[in-house]
Amino acid sequence: MELRPPSVLALVEELQQLPGVGPRTAVRLVQYLLRAPAAAARLAGAVGRAAEQVRHCSTCYLITEEDPCPVCRDASRDRGVICVVEDPLNAWAVEATAEFHGLYHVLGGTLDPLHGVGPEELTVAALLRRQQEGGVREVILATNPTVEGEATAHYLARALRSLGANVSRIAFGLPAGGEISYADQVTLSRALVGRRGMD
Amino acid sequence: MELRPPSVLALVEELQQLPGVGPRTAVRLVQYLLRAPAAAARLAGAVGRAAEQVRHCSTCYLITEEDPCPVCRDASRDRGVICVVEDPLNAWAVEATAEFHGLYHVLGGTLDPLHGVGPEELTVAALLRRQQEGGVREVILATNPTVEGEATAHYLARALRSLGANVSRIAFGLPAGGEISYADQVTLSRALVGRRGMD
Repeated sequence: MELRPPSVLALVEELQQLPGVGPRTAVRLVQYLLRAPAAAARLAGAVGRAAEQVRHCSTCYLITEEDPCPVCRDASRDRGVICVVEDPLNAWAVEATAEFHGLYHVLGGTLDPLHGVGPEELTVAALLRRQQEGGVREVILATNPTVEGEATAHYLARALRSLGANVSRIAFGLPAGGEISYADQVTLSRALVGRRGMD
Repeated sequence: MELRPPSVLALVEELQQLPGVGPRTAVRLVQYLLRAPAAAARLAGAVGRAAEQVRHCSTCYLITEEDPCPVCRDASRDRGVICVVEDPLNAWAVEATAEFHGLYHVLGGTLDPLHGVGPEELTVAALLRRQQEGGVREVILATNPTVEGEATAHYLARALRSLGANVSRIAFGLPAGGEISYADQVTLSRALVGRRGMD
């Protein structure tokens, strides 16, 4: 007979939809939640509230509870620089450096023609519109240093330049604390090509 | 500035409490849930319902929505055999074999004196009470073949035998589909010691 109560089966079913959660992890999560009913109630509330309250900023597509988002609303940010990222996680990482004081633009992914992801599936049109509205001195392309991220950056650079934009790409090279002999060839090549004069 | 909305921070906080979920996984889960708000609402509901409706059977401590649980209520189960397991997951695995038709008893863990887990922290007293109430022909100890599971089985065997119980332990040996040359020494030793006459 089926020993698992219907509500547990339903929970396992929902948990398995999550990325990186297989049947065993799902059951382990269920067990934890059952052992800690207070934590389960808090998690249920947190999931529900996030799903209800969070949306995308209609200007920059960052995840936000208010539209426009706090960055787009903040008068102290430099409105002349836009940092283009693939997803909100990447924007959070850039923001954590405290090196960037402009606005963001979240693409929502990378171009992937083989899987049917063209410019229309991303927020490319909205980015070009922001450029056309004027006042943008520089667009920094901060897509990931992957094949897809590079291809997307090249596509965007061409489209933005045709509108007269000043486009830059974040630097690639050795990561801080890295060891040259352990670096892969592509990284080391880029570190050499991207060398700068020492002050 | 903090780009993550308060409700996302709260959700990341709750998700990180889960076993095996670190900060990166938590953020990835958040992203998935935000991309699929319907799935998020369903997950919130499923977590909430499971936390609300699920309890332990007061007889066998299986996870259930009704007390006594369906197994303890089922008149067709053999009430003379009790299979003792560490946790509900293990009972579910035993039940899935369709080889066992008796009742279960969930210990809630293993004895672990170094971490302060004695018989009082488990459901040992309830198990001994079930034996004393009579009608039990056999107690099958199905704790895991780990050091803790073995120690717990030995402790229970002694306690149950002192009450006149007929105690057995599940068999250890080579797993089905296993390859002898790949088996660890302990497993192979147990397979030899546990050999049985061929029919």
